[in-house]
Amino acid sequence: MAKYAIVVEYIGTNYAGSQIQPDQVTIQSELERALGTLIKSEGETPSGRIKTIFSGRTDAGVHAKGQVVHFVSEKPIVASRFLNSLNGILPKDISVSSIKEVPDDFHAQKSGRFRRYQYKIVNRRQRSAWDSHSLLVREPLNVARMNEALSFLLGEHDFSSFKSSQSSNPAVVCTVYKAEAVKSGDLITVEIVANRFLYNMVRTIVGTLLMIEHKDLKPGLMGEVLEAKDRTKAGPTISPDGLTLVEVGYSPYQPEKQVSS
Amino acid sequence: MAKYAIVVEYIGTNYAGSQIQPDQVTIQSELERALGTLIKSEGETPSGRIKTIFSGRTDAGVHAKGQVVHFVSEKPIVASRFLNSLNGILPKDISVSSIKEVPDDFHAQKSGRFRRYQYKIVNRRQRSAWDSHSLLVREPLNVARMNEALSFLLGEHDFSSFKSSQSSNPAVVCTVYKAEAVKSGDLITVEIVANRFLYNMVRTIVGTLLMIEHKDLKPGLMGEVLEAKDRTKAGPTISPDGLTLVEVGYSPYQPEKQVSS
Repeated sequence: MAKYAIVVEYIGTNYAGSQIQPDQVTIQSELERALGTLIKSEGETPSGRIKTIFSGRTDAGVHAKGQVVHFVSEKPIVASRFLNSLNGILPKDISVSSIKEVPDDFHAQKSGRFRRYQYKIVNRRQRSAWDSHSLLVREPLNVARMNEALSFLLGEHDFSSFKSSQSSNPAVVCTVYKAEAVKSGDLITVEIVANRFLYNMVRTIVGTLLMIEHKDLKPGLMGEVLEAKDRTKAGPTISPDGLTLVEVGYSPYQPEKQVSS
Repeated sequence: MAKYAIVVEYIGTNYAGSQIQPDQVTIQSELERALGTLIKSEGETPSGRIKTIFSGRTDAGVHAKGQVVHFVSEKPIVASRFLNSLNGILPKDISVSSIKEVPDDFHAQKSGRFRRYQYKIVNRRQRSAWDSHSLLVREPLNVARMNEALSFLLGEHDFSSFKSSQSSNPAVVCTVYKAEAVKSGDLITVEIVANRFLYNMVRTIVGTLLMIEHKDLKPGLMGEVLEAKDRTKAGPTISPDGLTLVEVGYSPYQPEKQVSS
């Protein structure tokens, strides 16, 4: 018996989120079925599915490039052959990029030290047939102002203002390690790294950023919204289609080195 | 009455090519219908469609970022308003990025001096949910060898070997200005610029490149296939999904400046 961690990529558009739910097609239901088919076909387990633990749930329509998932297999797995087979039976919009054996005490969710999300905004007057997995914003955005607003989020705070009203989780304190907008051509990527995220947190933060820009409010409003601990002060929860879980880290977060100029 | 040129982008996956065909949904049929709706709604033409001329046809499943199309409008068009309206009624996978008035003697096809195509190859062991509009090749490719093979195509040649057997066009001579493979991470982009292209030409050239790589043949085979003027000597016509018409030029081709090192 051995424990394995896999890195899962998906386009979330056609799924009711990552987590298993009755009568819904989710990333987890597809993944557990594929793992079960594969491992059963090698005679390892009698039941149809392999139970998986995700690093965290992603909402319906949210994508991933670095979702981490662990599971236990009765028999050892040969990595390259297993990946080929798994990617052969998973739906086209889900794939697994790597697998490795992990210690018994590894837990995809509890061992995670940070999560990195990116939200993609296309800032251009006209839509393009090539736009995908991004939010089109037609009014010109000021990236310097966006970064000034984002800087208020850094550090340990109560993020109640940016939490879905549907969430009943009483743990509302998160530590944000990085919150930054980067522009490349007409693409603006908002990247947020934190030890943990509340339900809808990134989408509400970016919704608040865009509210500040559209209404020409001061960047400091982000700090005021944060301190208010009141969801009604923040901007709207924007489309999930621009959001991607890029990385889950299992060692302490290290800021990326700046390129020297 | 004025003549206009527009730059059209599309994801060709769901279309039977660019050119109008009876009982088929094509890029041209969707575009002419949208233009007709728009211009008719401003009371300019009585009929349902606006006749368009494309710079050239693209096959079923081939994409475009820079297809050029001209048409004539009875009344002058206000560019920004027109683009908004046009992109509002076109299907999601077709868009128009610009419009400008052109001289009476401009012809999207006949005035074209060069066309630039790119074919995208993802060179990686495992497929990814994020792969799109590219061909996955699992065996490692040697980009230096690919460039050596591509160099045989430069200049004016009879390209009969790389022409679909379904094509009856007797004009088989093309001048290739650029034929180059560039690797960035696991993405290899094959770019070919020529004054004109034969039916299936880029797909057959890249199919031949991959045949040379897979069978470990010598790069010089590309030159031998070219000289044979015999379609049966070339490799297969590979998937249209990796192919995009990137640019149509209306002044003589100028090689891109090399970045000095």
